[in-house]
Amino acid sequence: MYKVFGDMLSGNCYKIKLLMQFLDIEHQWIHINILANETQTEKFKQMNPNARIPVLELNNGTYLWESNAILNYLAENTKFLPQNNYERAKVLQWQFFEQYSHEPYIATARYINKYLGLPKERESEYHGKQSGGHKALFVMDKHLSQNKFFVGSDVTIADISLYAYTHVADEGGFDLSDYLHIQRWLQDFEKIPGYIKMLRENP
Amino acid sequence: MYKVFGDMLSGNCYKIKLLMQFLDIEHQWIHINILANETQTEKFKQMNPNARIPVLELNNGTYLWESNAILNYLAENTKFLPQNNYERAKVLQWQFFEQYSHEPYIATARYINKYLGLPKERESEYHGKQSGGHKALFVMDKHLSQNKFFVGSDVTIADISLYAYTHVADEGGFDLSDYLHIQRWLQDFEKIPGYIKMLRENP
Repeated sequence: MYKVFGDMLSGNCYKIKLLMQFLDIEHQWIHINILANETQTEKFKQMNPNARIPVLELNNGTYLWESNAILNYLAENTKFLPQNNYERAKVLQWQFFEQYSHEPYIATARYINKYLGLPKERESEYHGKQSGGHKALFVMDKHLSQNKFFVGSDVTIADISLYAYTHVADEGGFDLSDYLHIQRWLQDFEKIPGYIKMLRENP
Repeated sequence: MYKVFGDMLSGNCYKIKLLMQFLDIEHQWIHINILANETQTEKFKQMNPNARIPVLELNNGTYLWESNAILNYLAENTKFLPQNNYERAKVLQWQFFEQYSHEPYIATARYINKYLGLPKERESEYHGKQSGGHKALFVMDKHLSQNKFFVGSDVTIADISLYAYTHVADEGGFDLSDYLHIQRWLQDFEKIPGYIKMLRENP
């Protein structure tokens, strides 16, 4: 059985939870407390030398890290990852967009605000994240004005990757009310059988 | 014939050039001057709404962006991308590591120093990039102490992704002399048939 080392409040971890729900993949979830530096121990770094969650442990005891790599691994030969080479590359295109142009703004602003309580010394960084976050949301909204999902005509792991932090962007100070196409897409996404909400507090 | 819109001084663009050299893929290279804001025009944004290079134009006139997505597209069914699902995911793991934990430090420090000439108002940002960059180099060096390449026993596009900015890390202020395993790997990489150096000045 798969083991997932993660935090249910982290969008990167929630991505894995969502896909496992959609595909009904049996797994054990092991909570890692990042604020207690549980990713910084030698034991954790043997799983992921880059000291980040989520980490997937396979049945044979090997590990895989980076949320979007894990999604690609689990989605292989399912409807969440196309077979066609161009469409697969388009999935990756949006996933790399997510990690480079979306997550460092929207997820980081949310982290500073929600996890750390917007401390004075990080206020200027928090405000500096707003413009980059809106730029990413604008690119997404424009794409969704002409496309139901990010790649092809049905949901893929590209949507899962982008849904994770977009739907809680308000917790990073991003008002989505002007992004009408993103709102429509969020609603469509939430109709996928197996969908579960992200926890807003750890149990 | 493929068209590549890029800048030969950009590591993200150089990745595409390297793979095309290794695979002997015929293509046309169209120089884009980022300092002259050539990625910000409406015409460019029709190719990539995220306004970044590189962009690949396919024979049918469609576009693909994000350097690592382009590498995966071009490497399909070649020796640079394994067939095995776990190894493919490991390639992606290192490519997402590159875009999230390596490029924002090492490439950005290089950009501030080399492209912008280390202006006073970005000096503190530049110095702030050093610790994250060394963290990524440390993770790489440790992995390479036990592995010849990043995934499996031969070179893959994961190596191409990480080579691009690592081998010019000195231009971002990173001294590689203590990273003995990275140095060995750089030398091995440069022996791949078809290897060409990155230009240090645009023609």
